[in-house]
Amino acid sequence: MINITLPDGKVVRYAPGVTPMEVARDISEGLARNVISARFNNRKVESQTPLEEDGDLVLYTWQDDEGKKAFWHSSSHVLAQALEELYPGIKLTIGPAIDSGFYYDVDFMEHTISEKDFPAIEKRALEIARGKHDFVMREVSKADALAYYGNQGNEYKLELIENLQDGDITFCDHDTFTDLCRGGHIPNTGLIRAFKILNVAGAYWRGDENRPQLTRVYGISFPKQKDLTEYLELLEEAKKRDHRKLGKELELFTFSARVGQGLPLWLPKGAALRERLEQFLKKAQRKAGYEMVVSPHIGQKELYVTSGHYAKYGEDSFQPIHTPKEDEEFLLKPMNCPHHCEIYRARPFSYRELPKRYAEFGTVYRYEQSGELHGLTRVRGFTQDDAHIFCTPEQLDQEFKDVIDLSLYVLTSLGFDQFTAQVSVRDPETPEKYIGTAENWERAEAAIIGAAREKGLDFAIVPGEAAFYGPKLDFMVKDALGRQWQLGTIQVDYNLPERFDLTYKGSDNELHRPVMIHRAPFGSMERFVALLLEHTGGNFPLWLTPQQAIVLPVSEKHENYAQKVLKSLENHEIRALVDARSETVGRKIREAEIQKVPFMLIVGDQEMEEGTVSVRRHGGGDLGTLSVDAFSDLVSKEINSTLKSFKSEV
Amino acid sequence: MINITLPDGKVVRYAPGVTPMEVARDISEGLARNVISARFNNRKVESQTPLEEDGDLVLYTWQDDEGKKAFWHSSSHVLAQALEELYPGIKLTIGPAIDSGFYYDVDFMEHTISEKDFPAIEKRALEIARGKHDFVMREVSKADALAYYGNQGNEYKLELIENLQDGDITFCDHDTFTDLCRGGHIPNTGLIRAFKILNVAGAYWRGDENRPQLTRVYGISFPKQKDLTEYLELLEEAKKRDHRKLGKELELFTFSARVGQGLPLWLPKGAALRERLEQFLKKAQRKAGYEMVVSPHIGQKELYVTSGHYAKYGEDSFQPIHTPKEDEEFLLKPMNCPHHCEIYRARPFSYRELPKRYAEFGTVYRYEQSGELHGLTRVRGFTQDDAHIFCTPEQLDQEFKDVIDLSLYVLTSLGFDQFTAQVSVRDPETPEKYIGTAENWERAEAAIIGAAREKGLDFAIVPGEAAFYGPKLDFMVKDALGRQWQLGTIQVDYNLPERFDLTYKGSDNELHRPVMIHRAPFGSMERFVALLLEHTGGNFPLWLTPQQAIVLPVSEKHENYAQKVLKSLENHEIRALVDARSETVGRKIREAEIQKVPFMLIVGDQEMEEGTVSVRRHGGGDLGTLSVDAFSDLVSKEINSTLKSFKSEV
Repeated sequence: MINITLPDGKVVRYAPGVTPMEVARDISEGLARNVISARFNNRKVESQTPLEEDGDLVLYTWQDDEGKKAFWHSSSHVLAQALEELYPGIKLTIGPAIDSGFYYDVDFMEHTISEKDFPAIEKRALEIARGKHDFVMREVSKADALAYYGNQGNEYKLELIENLQDGDITFCDHDTFTDLCRGGHIPNTGLIRAFKILNVAGAYWRGDENRPQLTRVYGISFPKQKDLTEYLELLEEAKKRDHRKLGKELELFTFSARVGQGLPLWLPKGAALRERLEQFLKKAQRKAGYEMVVSPHIGQKELYVTSGHYAKYGEDSFQPIHTPKEDEEFLLKPMNCPHHCEIYRARPFSYRELPKRYAEFGTVYRYEQSGELHGLTRVRGFTQDDAHIFCTPEQLDQEFKDVIDLSLYVLTSLGFDQFTAQVSVRDPETPEKYIGTAENWERAEAAIIGAAREKGLDFAIVPGEAAFYGPKLDFMVKDALGRQWQLGTIQVDYNLPERFDLTYKGSDNELHRPVMIHRAPFGSMERFVALLLEHTGGNFPLWLTPQQAIVLPVSEKHENYAQKVLKSLENHEIRALVDARSETVGRKIREAEIQKVPFMLIVGDQEMEEGTVSVRRHGGGDLGTLSVDAFSDLVSKEINSTLKSFKSEV
Repeated sequence: MINITLPDGKVVRYAPGVTPMEVARDISEGLARNVISARFNNRKVESQTPLEEDGDLVLYTWQDDEGKKAFWHSSSHVLAQALEELYPGIKLTIGPAIDSGFYYDVDFMEHTISEKDFPAIEKRALEIARGKHDFVMREVSKADALAYYGNQGNEYKLELIENLQDGDITFCDHDTFTDLCRGGHIPNTGLIRAFKILNVAGAYWRGDENRPQLTRVYGISFPKQKDLTEYLELLEEAKKRDHRKLGKELELFTFSARVGQGLPLWLPKGAALRERLEQFLKKAQRKAGYEMVVSPHIGQKELYVTSGHYAKYGEDSFQPIHTPKEDEEFLLKPMNCPHHCEIYRARPFSYRELPKRYAEFGTVYRYEQSGELHGLTRVRGFTQDDAHIFCTPEQLDQEFKDVIDLSLYVLTSLGFDQFTAQVSVRDPETPEKYIGTAENWERAEAAIIGAAREKGLDFAIVPGEAAFYGPKLDFMVKDALGRQWQLGTIQVDYNLPERFDLTYKGSDNELHRPVMIHRAPFGSMERFVALLLEHTGGNFPLWLTPQQAIVLPVSEKHENYAQKVLKSLENHEIRALVDARSETVGRKIREAEIQKVPFMLIVGDQEMEEGTVSVRRHGGGDLGTLSVDAFSDLVSKEINSTLKSFKSEV
């Protein structure tokens, strides 16, 4: 008999050869219906794999990431079979599951494939699925494996097999199809009820641009048709909300090949939006006792050698800048912290003056390969809403709580109300990996966990994820499409104060080492604006949106009145414009809708006579005719309902 | 007879050999007493030089820069004579006049010289001066000149003579002293009534660090003792107001050897000051129809090749930045204009949408040799309050006027009320040097001159000083010490719109070239803050100063009340702090005075009881006991009296 330990600690006894599916069935029939893969002694197994020794068993369903991975990986086998049947003579290479779905890289030989071929492939894949074919793993000798693919003339699989050890090679069969495979499948093809080819793209064999170009066929599959429908709707919505598309439509930012890829140029409306975000945070930071500083965008190489950034990033980053006549080397700054350490060093501090909280909207530059660049989310230059807090170890607890308060204020003011947090602490098994005393670490970890708990955060503690220089807390937000994004980090740092020899005079008149906290609630202005665009679909909170209202004169003779209305709006501090082009008011409304201007104020004969405006809300709603004062009250009320003042009780 | 034309166009006739002094005497005895040098046919001459042909004569007095130069150059001869007498065997090299005074570079051989020796040198120089020795020029053959200095063993003078042509070598004699000299002297030493050695410094022969180090003796001289006294007082005041000294005392900025020389780090108080200046200008710019943009601090080399900046500055500037894996070259941006041109190119414009006014507080980097760096006035990275206006040629006139309005608003709001302007136009003799049509140039020059006239500027038109790409207007301000500083420039540009192929669609539906205006009222934040520090001695206008008030509790038991006062001040938007240190109130006041905090609010028993504060003004004045509301009124009134709103009539 063998002992099988379940995740809840319960131990069950079976004869050797029992399968995960049998264990599941003994727990409940419902679970057995849903089990799609398993892990035994930390090794991927099939639901039908015989278990031969004592061990820990985890059963996965569609709800688990591991379950989805097995589902999608299995679906890639079905895709491969369908492709082989429809395009005889093609050569299969690899077909893994990815975060959303799966792909198969295929050498299509004389065939080509495009969007119009997708329905036929999907149809055949679903037919195969409906056959309820079991996925069956079998071990194959290296010689047999080579013979199998040698017969097919598939040099790709042969290359893969050449790199494997004899005894370590498995094939997976289902229906008439066989594939070289490590395992991790669902019980049978019948679980796949919805199947969709998403797109095709070029991909080099083994990612090497000197090797043959293959066709990567992306697909996704689900246990229910409804899941696929929802997924496709989400995809459609995400496409509409793509920040690159919205950024262009709303004229927020642009890129120029001449300036350089990954280096955004903020257009007037985007720059105004960004300024507003910055002023919003500056105001809250002022209340929270931060002081702004300004530092240059370059520093001598020595600065980053001191901080340790050069050793870590130097070679993979933008290369040093030399000067024409002197023996100097500068680097574009990849981080603001070394500069802020030097600012702290500008004069001595007493413990009574701490904490010092230095904040800067600091633009940093980091090299990314051009292929990795993506809109505003992956750029080569970005502005962090950075701050560094220098405090005594005793102050860490309170400072951490205050930073959480500020971060929550920022996120909720911008309409993110679903977030979780991750607290990264030491790996207790390798204490030697970490700088700083055990006492300080314990204090810092307790401070973070205590603060997260006190602030009611939904958080997980992950041992071993802390940086070598200190524990941290990361906020994860869920956007309107349910996607997770990592936002602001709060990071404790015992390292830089050492490296820069930072000190303060304690109450004992001795010099002590301060602790540093790095934090950035937005992360970066670029990434945050991108996220905000995708979260709101470009319908920014009213307080933030670049243009709150647009005045639309019906014809030329109403233009003077429109200008008067504009002045009056400006006096009420409402950001507005007049669209004085000689277009029809209908066209002006349509364009203002595309620009997502929250309020359209139409002025014609009647409004001019009555001294009013006809108010139309973006995305629908005629709000009737209002005086400018009444309209301005409406705007104020909406703003005040979303934007509270930080620490407004003060 | 020869014809001599005077600056007013009058022609007078003399026998050849007449001297400038004789011409002056015929104009008036008063002028003759004051004439100290002259220029004949655009060549420096002595007041006693015989004039032999027809020509233009300008007579200079102490009031003219040329006159001062001759005065100081002559004084360097007197200094050299005094030094030679007091330190036998020294070797003289060169001794020119400079902007303020003169110097002589001397190889002191076995002698040394320090401040304690200055009085003896000054005494001997004045004795020589009182001898009323004429300065007499004479031509010397190269052989004789070499023989003269060969006898002295002066290898420096020999080297200078070696580089001169025979027939082009003159000596100047006065009293017992002779020097190799090109000329440009006052009539005799007797005009020098005040003489002061200012300091000594090391200087390499011919500025080459591989050649011998000499001692540079700096001096200044005046025709009246009173002038020297005033000058020394000014020097003393300038030293007190040195922005590097004040910047340190007021904790506005610092430099770090590790970050790099010439790269300022703005400390909290300085950053707050700078932010306030930026917000002030942003607000005015918003009213003036500017739009903010944001661009990166680097750009591909190609961007600057397109703009022409690379050809002009490339080799002498910060060298290109390479990336590790791709064949790319970036440069730190030396100017914002190429980026703004690319922003303009982001979409097509109709004439109806112009002018576009793109503004950015853009930080640029320009290499300066470390020896040239000076506080905030000569740095390697600085932030321009930059803007570029893209307009039609027809709009240039109005735009230029509006920019002048904005510039004047900025200067006067910051307490500069003495300024002049210089309008730089084409050299009419070399029209081929300039880009753009003659018609556009005429229009632009007329626009600038018309605008300057209409705005009542005190300005001079300087032909030939325009850049090849357009005419410009520079503002010169006089600071509180009477020193001239060049501030904001307004520059018309026909070149970049060509190079970037910028267009707009005109009313004729054809594409046209816009005109560009570059402008920066502050110039740069660094230079402007330096100037403002020296102009105000650190006593910034109340609206601008980082900290408007400081609350000083008399003892610990008044601290709570002090904090209440602070909250109340914050509610009145007064920037204040509490000095809660356990120091005496006397010491707190002294330190607040050094920090130049405008208002000190002392709170003790009586104030706590009455709910008031005891108000003390920086630099004197006890203003008595006031309620916080009354104090806040006082502050508002003072602010409103200096800071008007831009275009407040709107």
